[in-house]
Amino acid sequence: MAEIPSGGFVALISDFGYGSFYVGVMKAAVYHAAPHARVVDITHDISPQAVEEGSFILSTVFDYFSPGSIFLAVVDPGVGGKRENLVFDLGDRYVVAPDNGLVSDLVARYEVDTCMAINTDRLDLFRLRPETGKTFLGRDVFAPAAGALASGTPLQELGNPADAFATIDIPTVRLGKNRIEGCGRYIDRFGNVLTNITSAHLDKAFSGHPFGKIRAQIGNRVVEGVQQCYSERPQGTFMVVLNSWNLIEVSVNRGRAADVLSLSDPCDAHVILEC
Amino acid sequence: MAEIPSGGFVALISDFGYGSFYVGVMKAAVYHAAPHARVVDITHDISPQAVEEGSFILSTVFDYFSPGSIFLAVVDPGVGGKRENLVFDLGDRYVVAPDNGLVSDLVARYEVDTCMAINTDRLDLFRLRPETGKTFLGRDVFAPAAGALASGTPLQELGNPADAFATIDIPTVRLGKNRIEGCGRYIDRFGNVLTNITSAHLDKAFSGHPFGKIRAQIGNRVVEGVQQCYSERPQGTFMVVLNSWNLIEVSVNRGRAADVLSLSDPCDAHVILEC
Amino acid sequence: MAEIPSGGFVALISDFGYGSFYVGVMKAAVYHAAPHARVVDITHDISPQAVEEGSFILSTVFDYFSPGSIFLAVVDPGVGGKRENLVFDLGDRYVVAPDNGLVSDLVARYEVDTCMAINTDRLDLFRLRPETGKTFLGRDVFAPAAGALASGTPLQELGNPADAFATIDIPTVRLGKNRIEGCGRYIDRFGNVLTNITSAHLDKAFSGHPFGKIRAQIGNRVVEGVQQCYSERPQGTFMVVLNSWNLIEVSVNRGRAADVLSLSDPCDAHVILEC
Repeated sequence: MAEIPSGGFVALISDFGYGSFYVGVMKAAVYHAAPHARVVDITHDISPQAVEEGSFILSTVFDYFSPGSIFLAVVDPGVGGKRENLVFDLGDRYVVAPDNGLVSDLVARYEVDTCMAINTDRLDLFRLRPETGKTFLGRDVFAPAAGALASGTPLQELGNPADAFATIDIPTVRLGKNRIEGCGRYIDRFGNVLTNITSAHLDKAFSGHPFGKIRAQIGNRVVEGVQQCYSERPQGTFMVVLNSWNLIEVSVNRGRAADVLSLSDPCDAHVILEC
Repeated sequence: MAEIPSGGFVALISDFGYGSFYVGVMKAAVYHAAPHARVVDITHDISPQAVEEGSFILSTVFDYFSPGSIFLAVVDPGVGGKRENLVFDLGDRYVVAPDNGLVSDLVARYEVDTCMAINTDRLDLFRLRPETGKTFLGRDVFAPAAGALASGTPLQELGNPADAFATIDIPTVRLGKNRIEGCGRYIDRFGNVLTNITSAHLDKAFSGHPFGKIRAQIGNRVVEGVQQCYSERPQGTFMVVLNSWNLIEVSVNRGRAADVLSLSDPCDAHVILEC
Repeated sequence: MAEIPSGGFVALISDFGYGSFYVGVMKAAVYHAAPHARVVDITHDISPQAVEEGSFILSTVFDYFSPGSIFLAVVDPGVGGKRENLVFDLGDRYVVAPDNGLVSDLVARYEVDTCMAINTDRLDLFRLRPETGKTFLGRDVFAPAAGALASGTPLQELGNPADAFATIDIPTVRLGKNRIEGCGRYIDRFGNVLTNITSAHLDKAFSGHPFGKIRAQIGNRVVEGVQQCYSERPQGTFMVVLNSWNLIEVSVNRGRAADVLSLSDPCDAHVILEC
C-alpha cells in the first residue's frame, strides 16, 4: 500500500440531483477537511438509487482524471444500514464509496490494492460538526474521508482493511466466433446509447476485419458498418459508432437514437455485431 | 462588529436555475472581485422567486459551511425596486442578500451582529463593469459585495448599518402536551419530505420517550415509530425518520413519499407527532 | 498577436447538459493541462446542437469575465468531421471552439486579432491520454487547448493561423425612422424573453426620446413605455424592460412572459419599438 500522491482533486459522482443542496453541503464538507482541494463534479444526475448506472459512469470516466485523484461516489439506497463505508486504493487513484457494488465495473478492469473500511471515529478531526443521524453519510462520512485523503492523510489512518466488498452483476458481453453480443448502459443528452461493447471486444472477435464490413443489429434494425464519427453518415441516419470512450455507441447523426428505439432504459437495447 | 476571518469560501444559492448563464456570470463577478475565492454552489434550483424555500435551505445548510464562509443568496422577485441590498454579519459567517426575508429562518435561530445596507458606489473597485440596469443585482451588487468580503475588505467599508430588515412568516411548529404539529418545507429528489420539526422539538415535547413509541400522522396516514434510517423498514414502507439534518422527514424506503402523498408543494404536508 | 496574460480562468459553455458526465471529464482534461486553472461553468444547458443559441450566450456573457479569461465553447453537431478546431484571440480574451459559427455574435461586435487552427499533435503534452475516436473533441482537443493556454503556453505553439472561419446568420435588428424591429434570442428560467435589441439601437433610433413614450409591439400585444426594472409595474403586468445586459427584454412582473406569448422558441417573438 504505497501512498498515492494527491493533487488535491476530488471528483464527485452522486444521485442527489444538481438541484439538490445535498451536493453543495457535501462539497462544503470536503473543503472543510481539505481547504485546498479542487472539487470537480462528474455528475449528480445518476438516476435515483441506480447503483449499476453509477458503476458504469464511474468506470467510464476513471482514466480521464489525473493520477492522484480521489473519487467520492455516493449512490446509496441503503444509507445508514449495516454495510461498511469503504475506501478503495486502485493503485493510483482512490474511490470512497458505500459497500454496495458501486465499484463493480471498475474492479472488473482494475486490481484493488487495498480496500479499507472507514472507522468513522477517525473522521472527527476532519468534520465541522459531529455525525448526526444516519441518512446523509455523504456529508458525514464519505466527504470527510475524501477530504482527509486530499489533505494528505495516509489511508491506513482512516480505518482497517475490509475482508471483502460487495459487487453487483453488471451486464456482460458475449463473444462468439465473428460475433459480439452486448447491451446499452447509458443514454446521453443527445439520445446516443453507449453500450458495454469495447474496442477490445472488437479486436478480439473481428481482429483485422474492416469496420465497414461489420453488421450491427439493434432490436430489429440492421446497420452496415461501424463509423468513427457521426458526420460520416447523412443527417438523420441511424448508425453505429466506435466512440471516443472506445465503446460501441448507437446514434443518429443530429438526431436521437434512443427516441428512434423508443428506449427509456438503456439496458433494453440489445446489440449484436457480426462479420 | 469583529472582523470575520475569511477562508475565501463563497457559497451561492439562487433561483436562477442551473441551466442559466446568470449563475456563471455571477461567479465571474465574484472571482473578479476576489480571484482567490473558492466558490461553492449550494443550489440554483430554488423554485423561481420562492423566498420561503430559499430561506429554509439557506438556514438548513448554514452550519455546514466552515466559519468565515460568505453566503451569496439571490432569490429576488423585487429586484431593482426600492428595498435595500444587505450584508448580515451573523458572528462567524456573512450573508449577502436582498432585503426581502430570505434570511427569515436563519435569524429565527441566530442573532444578527450587524446588518449593513450596501452602498453600491463603494463597489466600483470590485466590479469589472459599471452597474447597468436594475434587473440583475446578483451580478452588479451582491456578487461584488461578496467578493469584496472574500478578498478581505472590512464590512463597514461596504455601506452603512441598516435600521431594520424584512422577514417573512415562516411556518411555525406548535408544541402541545405530548404533541407536535408541523409541516413540510422541502421535497428532495428522492421524494423525501423534510419538515420543520426538529430534534429539539422532540426533546421538548417527548423528552425521554422512546422513538419507537411516537405515533405520526401525515394527512390521513398513521405511522408508528420514528426511525433513524430508511433501511430500518422494509422496502416500500411509508415511514418517518429523524434525518441527518435533525429534522423529521417523511420517507418511503427506496420509494417516493411525496408521490404517495400526491404532494407537489411540501407545505401541504401536515404532520402531527404524538406519544 | 500580443500574449494575453492568463489569470487561469477557463469559462465553459456547452450543450452537454448538466446531468452529463461529459462536463466533468472535460473539466478533468482542463485541470490535467492546467492544474491551477479556475474553471467556471457558464452553462451546459444550451439546447442540444443549437449553435445559434450558444453564439448568443457566449457573446452576452463575454464582457463579464475578467480579461485574460479563456472561453471553452463546445456546441458541436459536426464533431469529428473535416472542419477545423479553432482558437480565437479577441484582444484580451481567448475563445476555443469548433469552426461552426459559434462565435458569430461575438465577431459581429469584436475584431478577431488571430484565428488559429489547432494542430492536435501539439496537444500531446497537455493530454492525460492520447486522442481516441472522433466523437468527443471537447475532451481530447478543446479542453487540452484551453488548458494549455491557461497554463501559459503561447497561442502560436498550438497551431497555425487559419485562413478563414465560419459564421452563421444571426437574427439582425432593423432600424428605421423612429422604429426598431428585432426578435427574441433567449428565454430565461423566469420566462423572460431576451431580445437582440440593445441600448445602442435605442440611442440610435430614439436619441433623447423618453423611455416612457416608447411603444412596443410584441406579436399582437402593445405595451406603452420601456421600464428599468420589473417592479415598476404591478404584479402580473406584461411589460418591456431595458435589462442589465443592455438588451430589450419582454417580461411579466412575477410572471412568465414566454407563457403569456405561448413561446417555446424565442426567435418566434417579433418585437417592434416605435416612438
